[in-house]
Amino acid sequence: MSDLRTHPRFVTVEGGEGAGKTTVLNALRKVLEESGAEVVCTREPGGTPLAERIRALLLDPHHEAPAPETELLLMFAARVQHVRELILPALERGAWVLSDRFTDSSYAYQGGGRGLDVALIADLERRVVGLRPGLTLLLDLGVHQGRERMQVRDAAPDRIERERDEFFETVRAAYLARAQAEPQRIRVVDASSSAADVAYRASALLQHYLGVAP
Amino acid sequence: MSDLRTHPRFVTVEGGEGAGKTTVLNALRKVLEESGAEVVCTREPGGTPLAERIRALLLDPHHEAPAPETELLLMFAARVQHVRELILPALERGAWVLSDRFTDSSYAYQGGGRGLDVALIADLERRVVGLRPGLTLLLDLGVHQGRERMQVRDAAPDRIERERDEFFETVRAAYLARAQAEPQRIRVVDASSSAADVAYRASALLQHYLGVAP
Repeated sequence: MSDLRTHPRFVTVEGGEGAGKTTVLNALRKVLEESGAEVVCTREPGGTPLAERIRALLLDPHHEAPAPETELLLMFAARVQHVRELILPALERGAWVLSDRFTDSSYAYQGGGRGLDVALIADLERRVVGLRPGLTLLLDLGVHQGRERMQVRDAAPDRIERERDEFFETVRAAYLARAQAEPQRIRVVDASSSAADVAYRASALLQHYLGVAP
Repeated sequence: MSDLRTHPRFVTVEGGEGAGKTTVLNALRKVLEESGAEVVCTREPGGTPLAERIRALLLDPHHEAPAPETELLLMFAARVQHVRELILPALERGAWVLSDRFTDSSYAYQGGGRGLDVALIADLERRVVGLRPGLTLLLDLGVHQGRERMQVRDAAPDRIERERDEFFETVRAAYLARAQAEPQRIRVVDASSSAADVAYRASALLQHYLGVAP
């Protein structure tokens, strides 16, 4: 596979820590289910048994840290497995697929955060993934506010959550740059208000995408 | 890193199953140690704690099989970790590094065996690995003979060892094609005779490489 195909029934949610992805994903699932569709909800890294084992390697803070390129290749290894084993079969049978993170996360975290060559990421996306979502909702939140929300919630931060603010600032900037470059696909949702309000606005964007009045 | 650098103190041993790699590696280590060098012996996939965990994912026959591209990216994820954490530091302090398999295995198994695009493998080699051995000994053995030796030895074959003869025939052909394309670096050793004889001839090639009369 060497073409990048956009699939209209593939929807992703992106954003930094504490932006309220879980609440939004639940709301989006409800919108899709109410439209009568079969909905497959999944996440990255992960989504298949093998990909979840790769996720565990990636997030475990208890062995040596992966080199940035190791992290990138593990993310793409999990992603291609996810696409082949779960996402494409679901799309092919007519289901919608709703994923918590996808390739935009690699552009933001490994490209922005780790400073890896974006051309390498684009090459892997085109040559081994070959698939892009039709709609991506980017939950945008200031790093400081996200950090505060995380501290309330999370007793044991994983390896990536332990990064410094500077890292998350570059992640956020990379996300926003992607949204600016692809405004049709990536819709930015201000995530600074309450979770219910963010979920309401995200649902409205999905309803608009479905051609249903919100 | 985007250049492919050949390092003279980096030596690898390649070959199919049952070709006698272990005996050869022990003999080569002895040759290097007798020359007074520090020798780091390692293997792929593996060589660091994280890379060994990736190896376990790759060879485990008990979860869903990785897609060919997943297998390739996991191999390269383990490899780049190995290069950054173990191989380059050892070379930089003046040691020799002797590795059981390296990137030639990906050309043979994922390129030849799985039929993946060789240009993608070459791209990953150049862009994320950036390192080639100065000398590679390819232990060449007929698939049938290798299979017979494995059956004597191995009660529980791993996921890759369970492949069919046809797979190993294409692996062998890909290895030999690489040796033909790079005859200076890759020296073919006929591995059909006894392990002691194969190790003797491999040692002689290394001694010649070191500029020591065998």
